Amino acid sequence: MENLASSNITVMFLSLGVLLFVARFLGEFAQRFHQPAVLGELTAGILLGPTILGSLAPDLSAFLFPVHGLNVIALNTITTLAIALFLLVAGMEVDLSTVWRQGRIGFKVGITSIVIPFSIALIAALVVPEALGRHVGADPMIFALFLAIAMSISALPVIAKTLMDMNLYRSDLGMVVVSAAMFNDLIGWIVFAVLLGLIGQPSGTGNHIMMTIALTLAFTGGMLTIGRFLVHKVLPFVQAYTRWPGGELSFALILGMFGAAFTEWIGIHAIFGAFIVGVAVGDSSHLREHSRVIIANFVSFIFAPVFFASIGLKVNFLTHFDLPLVLSLLFIACACKLAGGTIGARWGGMPIREAWAIGFAMNSRGAMEIILGMIALQAGIIREQLFVALVVVAIVTSMMSGPSMRLLLQTEKKWRLRNILSSKLFLRELKATSRREAIHEMTAAAGGAIEGLDAQALETSVWKREKTLSTGIGNGVALPHARIDGLRESLVVVGISATGIDFDSPDGKPANVIFLMLTPGNEPGVQLEIASEIAKLFRDPRMTDRVLSTKRFTDFLALICAGI
Amino acid sequence: MENLASSNITVMFLSLGVLLFVARFLGEFAQRFHQPAVLGELTAGILLGPTILGSLAPDLSAFLFPVHGLNVIALNTITTLAIALFLLVAGMEVDLSTVWRQGRIGFKVGITSIVIPFSIALIAALVVPEALGRHVGADPMIFALFLAIAMSISALPVIAKTLMDMNLYRSDLGMVVVSAAMFNDLIGWIVFAVLLGLIGQPSGTGNHIMMTIALTLAFTGGMLTIGRFLVHKVLPFVQAYTRWPGGELSFALILGMFGAAFTEWIGIHAIFGAFIVGVAVGDSSHLREHSRVIIANFVSFIFAPVFFASIGLKVNFLTHFDLPLVLSLLFIACACKLAGGTIGARWGGMPIREAWAIGFAMNSRGAMEIILGMIALQAGIIREQLFVALVVVAIVTSMMSGPSMRLLLQTEKKWRLRNILSSKLFLRELKATSRREAIHEMTAAAGGAIEGLDAQALETSVWKREKTLSTGIGNGVALPHARIDGLRESLVVVGISATGIDFDSPDGKPANVIFLMLTPGNEPGVQLEIASEIAKLFRDPRMTDRVLSTKRFTDFLALICAGI
Repeated sequence: MENLASSNITVMFLSLGVLLFVARFLGEFAQRFHQPAVLGELTAGILLGPTILGSLAPDLSAFLFPVHGLNVIALNTITTLAIALFLLVAGMEVDLSTVWRQGRIGFKVGITSIVIPFSIALIAALVVPEALGRHVGADPMIFALFLAIAMSISALPVIAKTLMDMNLYRSDLGMVVVSAAMFNDLIGWIVFAVLLGLIGQPSGTGNHIMMTIALTLAFTGGMLTIGRFLVHKVLPFVQAYTRWPGGELSFALILGMFGAAFTEWIGIHAIFGAFIVGVAVGDSSHLREHSRVIIANFVSFIFAPVFFASIGLKVNFLTHFDLPLVLSLLFIACACKLAGGTIGARWGGMPIREAWAIGFAMNSRGAMEIILGMIALQAGIIREQLFVALVVVAIVTSMMSGPSMRLLLQTEKKWRLRNILSSKLFLRELKATSRREAIHEMTAAAGGAIEGLDAQALETSVWKREKTLSTGIGNGVALPHARIDGLRESLVVVGISATGIDFDSPDGKPANVIFLMLTPGNEPGVQLEIASEIAKLFRDPRMTDRVLSTKRFTDFLALICAGI
Repeated sequence: MENLASSNITVMFLSLGVLLFVARFLGEFAQRFHQPAVLGELTAGILLGPTILGSLAPDLSAFLFPVHGLNVIALNTITTLAIALFLLVAGMEVDLSTVWRQGRIGFKVGITSIVIPFSIALIAALVVPEALGRHVGADPMIFALFLAIAMSISALPVIAKTLMDMNLYRSDLGMVVVSAAMFNDLIGWIVFAVLLGLIGQPSGTGNHIMMTIALTLAFTGGMLTIGRFLVHKVLPFVQAYTRWPGGELSFALILGMFGAAFTEWIGIHAIFGAFIVGVAVGDSSHLREHSRVIIANFVSFIFAPVFFASIGLKVNFLTHFDLPLVLSLLFIACACKLAGGTIGARWGGMPIREAWAIGFAMNSRGAMEIILGMIALQAGIIREQLFVALVVVAIVTSMMSGPSMRLLLQTEKKWRLRNILSSKLFLRELKATSRREAIHEMTAAAGGAIEGLDAQALETSVWKREKTLSTGIGNGVALPHARIDGLRESLVVVGISATGIDFDSPDGKPANVIFLMLTPGNEPGVQLEIASEIAKLFRDPRMTDRVLSTKRFTDFLALICAGI
C-alpha cells in the first residue's frame, strides 16, 4: 500500500490519456457549434464515468477508473493539482483595472446572488425539508442552512472557463462576473467554514471559525496590496538573475503552490489561494507575455480539460436518481440564482440582456457544491438522492450557462479566415498565366461550387475592381475582391500558381498565392478584416514558399491555422 | 483512506512548493558555476530528504515529506507523471538525422557500456559476494546477475538533462550518447524483465519474458517507422481542424500517455514509452516550434526539477551507510562503466577527450537502478547496506558526469551579453551631449571600475575607431568599441542618455542607449558576437523606449534577459 505498483502506473497513464483525449475531442466538437469547450469537457466525464461507460462496460470502466485503491488517490492528486493551476491561470488573466472599474456592479451582483438564493433556499428547506431530501433525524435548521449555502455558492472555475472559451473573460461583462464570483466565493467559503463548525467537522470550533474568517480576509487583502507590490518589485530580479524563462515560470508556480497550501490550511479551498496569487502575479506589468502564454496554454489545454472531465467520473447519475427532487432542486437553484444575478446586474445599471447573461454566468455551480454535498452526506444530514441531485444541478447549470449567454449576447462568431476556407474553393494548381485568366478561373470555381452564384457576374465585378487598382500586396500574394449584393456569407477562393502571375505588386514579384474575396454587399467591414488577417499571415516572406510546398487543402489549412 | 483530505492537500501543495523552490534555486546556483542544473536539483533532494532535513528537523521533515499515508502516493503520482513528461520532451528533442549519422558509434558505445560492466560486476559478485552486500541465504547466481544488471543500466533521464543543461544535447556527441543510452536502456530493461522472472515477481513467467521482449522490440520498431509516419501525416489535420495550439499540445501529450501506459504494461518502464513517442512526434517537420517551446519550457523548468529533487527524498544516506561497501561499489561502477563507454567511443573512432566525456555521460545512473535495488531488497537478495550504496552510487555518478564532461570538453562558457554586464559599468544618466564627451565619460567609468585599465589610453583607442566610421546603428543605439591588447575579459559599459547623442546613425536618430564594447586584442570574434546580440535585442524599436523607462540596473538587466 506504500507506493504505486506497476499496474497502478499503467492504469494512471491510460486513464489520463483516455480522459484527456475524450475531453479535448468533445471540447473541440462543442466549439465547432460555437459552444464553450467546457461543455464538451464536462460531457466527456459523464460518458466515461459510471453513468454511461460504467453501465455499458462495467469491467472496462472499473479497469480504467477504479473506485478503490491507489489509482483513486493518483487521479485525485492530478485533478487537485490541475484545478489549482487552472485557477492560477484564471487569476493571472484577471484585469484588475477593469475589476476596479466594474467592481461596484460586481459587488452588487455578488451580494444579490448570495442573499437571494440563500433566503429563498433557506425558507424552502424549512417549509418542505422532506421533499428536498433531508435525512431522517437531521437537525432541520442545519439542513436548511446547508441547502441555503449549497444554492448560493458559485463556481469560479466553470465561470472562468466558460468566459474564456467565449472570449468574454477580459471584457467588461467578464470582469463584472469574475469580480462578483470572487466576492461570492469569498463569502461562500467563509460561510462554508461556519457550517463545518456547526456540523462538527474537526476544524470547526468557534475559535477556528473566527480565525478562518480573519485569515481569509487578511490573505486576500494582503496579497492584493502588499503581495502584489512585492511581486512587481521582485520580478525584475527574477528575470535578471535566473535563466529565462525558467525563473519566471517557476516563480509564478511556486507562489501559486504556497497560496494554495495556505488557503487550504486555513480552512477554505486551495483553489482560492491559487486564484488570488494569480491575480497578484498577473497584474505586474513586468510579467512577460512569453511566460504567460506558456503557462496559460499548457494549463488550459492539458490540465483544465482533465479536471472538468473528472467531475463526471464521481457519480452515477442513474442510481439514486430522484426525478421530482432533481427537478425541484434545479428549479430552485436556477430561479433564485438567476434572479439574484440579474437583479444585482440591473441594480448596477447593466442593460437587460447583459444582466440576464450575468445571471446565467453566476448560475454555474461546480466542485464546491459537490464537496459540500459529500460532507453533508457523510455527516448524515442529507439523503443520497439529494447528493445525486446536487451533482446533477452542478453539471446542468454549468452546461446551461455558455449556450444561454451566447443566445442572450448574440456574440458574433469570432471571425477567422480558417472558418470560411473550404476545400471546394481551393485551386491547388491554377492554369491561368495572367490576372484576367486567374480571375476568370477563380470566379468560375466559386460559381460552380456555390449554388445561386453567377460566375459571369462575379467575374465582371472583380475585374472592374481589379482594373481600378491592382491588388498585389507583395510577398507573392494578391487579394482580388468584390462586394456582392445579395451574398449571404463571405467566400474566399484560394488559387495557387507555382510560376506566379503578375498582379502589379509594389515589390514587383509575381503572385503565387491568390485569395479571391467575395463579401456580402451589406457588410462593408468584413473585406478589410479578411485582408488584414491575410496580410498578417504573409508578413513573413517564407510563408509563400511554405504554401507552395503544400500538396493538399489540409496542409494549406494547417499553415493558415498554425503559422510557419 | 478513499480520498485526499484537506490536510493532505495542504501538505501536497506545500511540499511541492518547497521542493520546486529549493530545486530551482540550487539549479540556478549550479549554473552560476557553469555546472548542469540537475546537479543542484539532485542536491536539493538530499538537503530536503531524510539525510539532512530529516536529521536536523525531524518533525518538519515528517510534516513536509511524510513517509506514510496518502501524501506518499500523491508525491509519487506527481513525480511519475513528471519523469514521463520529461522523457517525452527529451524524445522530442532527439534529432533523428544525427542519430542515424552517429548511430554506428552510439551502437558500439551501447554494446561496450553494457557488456564490460556486466561481465566485470558479474565476476566480482561471484568472487566476493559477502563484501558486496549479498543477503545471507540469497542465491549467489541471482545475486551476481542482479549486481551485474545494476552496474550496466544507464540513466537516460539524468544523461538527457545533463546534456541539455550543458547545451550539448543536440550536438554530435550528445546524439552519440543519447542513442547509446537508448540502446543501453532497451537492453537493460529487457534483461531487467528477465531478472524479475528469475526472482519470481508476478509478471515474470517464461512466456511473459519472451512476450515482453517481443513487444518491446515491436513497439520501438513500430513507433520509429509506422508510428513516426502516421504522426507526420496526422499532424496537419490536427493543426487544421482543432484550436491552435491546444490541439497540437494535447496530441503530443495524449500519445505520450498512451506510450507510457503501453511500455509499463508490457513490463518495462513507462518512461521508455514516453521517450519513444517523443522521438516519433518530435521528428515530424510539421510540429511547430511554438508547441515545442510551450511543452519543453513547462516540463523542463517545473516537472523535471521536482522529479530530480524527489530522488534524494527516498533514502537516509547516513543510516545503513557502509563506507567500504559504498567505496568499492562506486569504484566498480565507475571503473567498468567508464571503461565501457570510453572503449566503445574509441572503437567508434571518437577523439580521446570526447571518448572519455562519453564514458562519464554513460556513467550516470538513476531511477532504474534504485527501482531495481528496491525490488531486490524486498525479495531478500541484497542487504540494506547495499541498497543505500546503490542509491549513493546513482546520485554520485549522476553528479560527477556534468563537471567531468565540462573539464574534458573545455566547453566554452556560453557567451551571453548578460554575463558581462555589471552595475559598476552602468551609467543610468550620461551627462555627455556629444560623441566625444560620451566616450570620455564611459571610458573614464571603465578605467575607474577596473583595476589596471588606463582610461586615457582607452579613450584614445575608442575615439580613433569612432572617427574612422561612426558607430550609431539606428533605433537609438550606438556601439563604440575598441580591441585592447592585454585585456583579459571583455567589458561592456552601458550609458543611457534621455535626450540622445548624435552618433551619426543611418536612420538619423540620436543614440539613447550606448554600449561601449572593450574586448581582448587576441579574441577578434568576441566583438562581433556582442554587437550582433545587441543588434538583435534592439531590432524592435520599442526596446529603446523600454530601456529609457528603467530606473535601476536590475530593470535594465531584466530587459536584456527577458526581452520586452
